[in-house]
Amino acid sequence: MTAANHDNWLQSVRWNADHLDLLDQRLLPEEVVYLKLVASKDVWDAIKELKVRGAPAIGIAAAYGLYLGVQGEAGGVPELLAAVKRERDYLASSRPTAVNLFWALDRLVRKASELAEAGADAATIKEGLLQEAIVIQSEDEETNRAIGEHALSLFEDGYGVLTHCNAGGLATARYGTATAPMYLAKEKGWNLRVFADETRPVLQGARLTAFELMRAGIDVTLITDNMAAMVMSKGWIQAVIVGTDRVAANGDVANKIGTYGVAVLAKAHGIPFYVACPMSTIDLNTPTGADIPIEERHEDEVTVGFGKRTAPQGVKVYNPAFDVTPAEYVSAIITEKGIVRAPYADNLRRLFE
Amino acid sequence: MTAANHDNWLQSVRWNADHLDLLDQRLLPEEVVYLKLVASKDVWDAIKELKVRGAPAIGIAAAYGLYLGVQGEAGGVPELLAAVKRERDYLASSRPTAVNLFWALDRLVRKASELAEAGADAATIKEGLLQEAIVIQSEDEETNRAIGEHALSLFEDGYGVLTHCNAGGLATARYGTATAPMYLAKEKGWNLRVFADETRPVLQGARLTAFELMRAGIDVTLITDNMAAMVMSKGWIQAVIVGTDRVAANGDVANKIGTYGVAVLAKAHGIPFYVACPMSTIDLNTPTGADIPIEERHEDEVTVGFGKRTAPQGVKVYNPAFDVTPAEYVSAIITEKGIVRAPYADNLRRLFE
Repeated sequence: MTAANHDNWLQSVRWNADHLDLLDQRLLPEEVVYLKLVASKDVWDAIKELKVRGAPAIGIAAAYGLYLGVQGEAGGVPELLAAVKRERDYLASSRPTAVNLFWALDRLVRKASELAEAGADAATIKEGLLQEAIVIQSEDEETNRAIGEHALSLFEDGYGVLTHCNAGGLATARYGTATAPMYLAKEKGWNLRVFADETRPVLQGARLTAFELMRAGIDVTLITDNMAAMVMSKGWIQAVIVGTDRVAANGDVANKIGTYGVAVLAKAHGIPFYVACPMSTIDLNTPTGADIPIEERHEDEVTVGFGKRTAPQGVKVYNPAFDVTPAEYVSAIITEKGIVRAPYADNLRRLFE
Repeated sequence: MTAANHDNWLQSVRWNADHLDLLDQRLLPEEVVYLKLVASKDVWDAIKELKVRGAPAIGIAAAYGLYLGVQGEAGGVPELLAAVKRERDYLASSRPTAVNLFWALDRLVRKASELAEAGADAATIKEGLLQEAIVIQSEDEETNRAIGEHALSLFEDGYGVLTHCNAGGLATARYGTATAPMYLAKEKGWNLRVFADETRPVLQGARLTAFELMRAGIDVTLITDNMAAMVMSKGWIQAVIVGTDRVAANGDVANKIGTYGVAVLAKAHGIPFYVACPMSTIDLNTPTGADIPIEERHEDEVTVGFGKRTAPQGVKVYNPAFDVTPAEYVSAIITEKGIVRAPYADNLRRLFE
């Protein structure tokens, strides 16, 4: 299976014969520009400069980047394996906090070792690395499709669905996580009515979610974050679905700032609040949400977020990047292996058995 | 009593010997520019172009504008009274939906008639009109101070207080409504810790509330609207206080979009939700919030809010300017005559008896 170019949807990372085409997400929604990456340094730059975002998409790009970094290696197997390790360390340095990045790179390192141990020559190992990158991408697409199918079992044709931030196709190989049921509903001919919170301060909802859903022909309406409550009170929302950066063992959910507020509002309006994520996002080693560190980001995101200063010079700003939604607000966690409900401590553990 | 210029606070409208100094609120927070208005046309333009905003401030500006429009009238009393009516109609056309504008202008028309009936000459009538404008401004300041004193009885030193939008001094003669207890706490030496929602889409919280409180030396922290829930969950907020555009007879409150969400979040966190407003904002002729029309504004406010496009071209947008907070979420309504609590239908009516 190759990562083909589908014209009706926007693939953030796609392998193209001998190079990587990478959608420059910094330019969205105004410009759709694919960068042609031919060397591992190009991929390193793209990750570093946030041209590619979303943990799965970063991992996929890095895997292809490793292949690009070693494909020209002229020596034998020992030289190739050394190059693989060198490129692994180099690409891992592009974003030292991205767990998925390391996971994807290490998977290619293992692949190279296995093939070498099995007696493969350098050319075969190189081809094996490219195939492994393609497999990582395909698996991500399959994972998200499975998440989408489980999620869709909770929806009905005609539902109004609210989402926050971008857990979308742009962040993954395809489908996204929170957006996966929206794409599958579209395939099925259902008409969901999606409301996308713009998601201040960085506006991923406006710039990315509204953009990718609109492009896919899905009915999406953009609102500012503070309109969610009114939209719910009007009876327009039958389900909320969001992605997550980490799920703790007790079912607490860390996600983009604003998610917790949406969850509280959903509960107050009797609307189910769903979290969609791959199994890899559930961290049984994190006991509760209180154990998840919350990054505070620069005040400029709030005060000059639109390129124009919108707040007084020197004003105090509080700018947490994430918040934690306590498990009691989470109606279900939807993974590729199925739907988990409370009590989460027991049921999440069981999912991994 | 004259509307003097106090250097330690920012007066949005101030009479200055023979002209009006008007703070151009469109330029805030980046520039503090006072416009010198010498003719009623200048005032008409300022209202029309939103250089002055906030119902009380608009009414005050219009009152001075009427005086500016008739002060040069060379004829006798009949000619002056005709000029007063002409200027009334002219200035009223600057913003045909602003009730407070008509109220202030009509008050000056009545004043002119009364003085004429009492036998005053044209010069005396003109002086009476200027004095009436000054009285309107003074009364507004006194009203807000009374609101602030009642509100402050609900606060304690050290409280964290969250507000939404700008029901601030800039919108009124002084003190604002929701901000009045903050200014009075400052006078008293209390240390409140104020959190200002930035208030998308038009950012009145970032541009105006954070600005005026910071300038007054009040501890204010700016957050995006979707951070309010997290700030509440941290235990940083002991009270929410907001202004309102209209209170219905049953206690439902219309205010800037996002207010309803804040009220729901406050209730979920056990935080009292207060509404501060002058008696004139309570409309016993509006039975419930459902009877208050909600203006929907242009999508550009959401998609190109600050000169830069932040959402895809052609995306559907829902942009209501206001929402309605049902009375059940309102802990108290604070007026210049005192504090009203549920049941609002009875207690609001009693307030007017």
